[in-house]
Amino acid sequence: MKHAEKRPDRSSPVVGAPAAAPPGRRRGRGPSLRKRQAILGAARELFFQHGYEGTSMDDVAARAGVSKQTVYSHFVDKSRLFSALVTADIAGSETSAHPLIEAMPNSEDVERDLRTFARAHLEDVMQPDLLRMRRMLIGEAERFPELAKAWYDAGPVRSCAVFASWFEALDERGLLRVPDPMLAAQHFNWLVLSIPVNAAMSVPDAAPLYTKRELQYFADEGVRVFLAAYGPDAGS
Amino acid sequence: MKHAEKRPDRSSPVVGAPAAAPPGRRRGRGPSLRKRQAILGAARELFFQHGYEGTSMDDVAARAGVSKQTVYSHFVDKSRLFSALVTADIAGSETSAHPLIEAMPNSEDVERDLRTFARAHLEDVMQPDLLRMRRMLIGEAERFPELAKAWYDAGPVRSCAVFASWFEALDERGLLRVPDPMLAAQHFNWLVLSIPVNAAMSVPDAAPLYTKRELQYFADEGVRVFLAAYGPDAGS
Repeated sequence: MKHAEKRPDRSSPVVGAPAAAPPGRRRGRGPSLRKRQAILGAARELFFQHGYEGTSMDDVAARAGVSKQTVYSHFVDKSRLFSALVTADIAGSETSAHPLIEAMPNSEDVERDLRTFARAHLEDVMQPDLLRMRRMLIGEAERFPELAKAWYDAGPVRSCAVFASWFEALDERGLLRVPDPMLAAQHFNWLVLSIPVNAAMSVPDAAPLYTKRELQYFADEGVRVFLAAYGPDAGS
Repeated sequence: MKHAEKRPDRSSPVVGAPAAAPPGRRRGRGPSLRKRQAILGAARELFFQHGYEGTSMDDVAARAGVSKQTVYSHFVDKSRLFSALVTADIAGSETSAHPLIEAMPNSEDVERDLRTFARAHLEDVMQPDLLRMRRMLIGEAERFPELAKAWYDAGPVRSCAVFASWFEALDERGLLRVPDPMLAAQHFNWLVLSIPVNAAMSVPDAAPLYTKRELQYFADEGVRVFLAAYGPDAGS
């Protein structure tokens, strides 16, 4: 979203502009940025549907309504187009910061706040496009190890680092008993996410079948198990 | 492994037999079965390396050292070859039955037995070829929903059904407190598996980096958290 306020410096009508970006909705840096977004949008759909190997630059150009040359001039080759897509998604996911991320170490009601956060966290991770991206990156992890790792670092690794810092602070305040904050962070993360996320990895159709209420149940029960093991009265 | 004792009914030397099945190691039903195994072995390697879309029947024939016609006569088309491979792996995984699967409901030391089982379960799931298959099926889940679901049913779903039956029996004996056996089964399964399995999904190189001792630690800590929530003294 950098430079979102910047006015387009070229105002001539765009020939062959994709339907998704009509002249009336111009934003960003004008035709070039719009074409870039159209290419990324088309690439996302095609990669999701046909996988990396099953998608060609020709397909992307046709779907985006631009010339093949335009695709190459923006992204050089297919692997860089794929990288750009994943990187854009990672950057996008970093904006979804929950207010409790900052507030948790000073929580006055740890159970309530962990529950509130867990529900939001699970709902975030269960977004259909993020699940599709997660599936695709897992499938491509051997061919694109840096991308899969970047995604993993921006997801579970980053989240768990935050959770570990919470749990350390809450342990110091005597509100939790957490001898190994990073282990506790990983237990928390996967207690909340594992059941529906793993189902969604193998059974794509299962994800939309979960109701908001069911996801809340998984989040709440994950927090319950976590607090049994790491609450102030835990035996560990 | 059916008919493993049956002698080959054709003993003439095989022209163009793959290096993996020299005449001295003949087993099963002779040249036809050997070729089938060679094709499946080649397909496994190629699918793992290049994905489903990146692998052709020509590649498989060349790698297996057989004609393309032989590949088609055994497997009809690429999607059926892929199905046969996954189905064979699922059937293979069903033989890895741990003695505690039967014995757990009558356990005299639930903590010890859960720990022993959890360590074996995690080691099973972390086998490199199973992790690769898991990654590939997740990546192909939208295109092969039946296969991905068959794999998921033969893995987590089947395991959790077994665990739920244990926990129900142990609850009746007063050794655990498990109001919802299927939820407890899923918590147990993912408490033991999630940390290293999720790392291995996104960071293939991470899997071999875990020592046996580290995997045991994850298994033991998963059991500890589980028992804090579901042990006989748990507050739930």
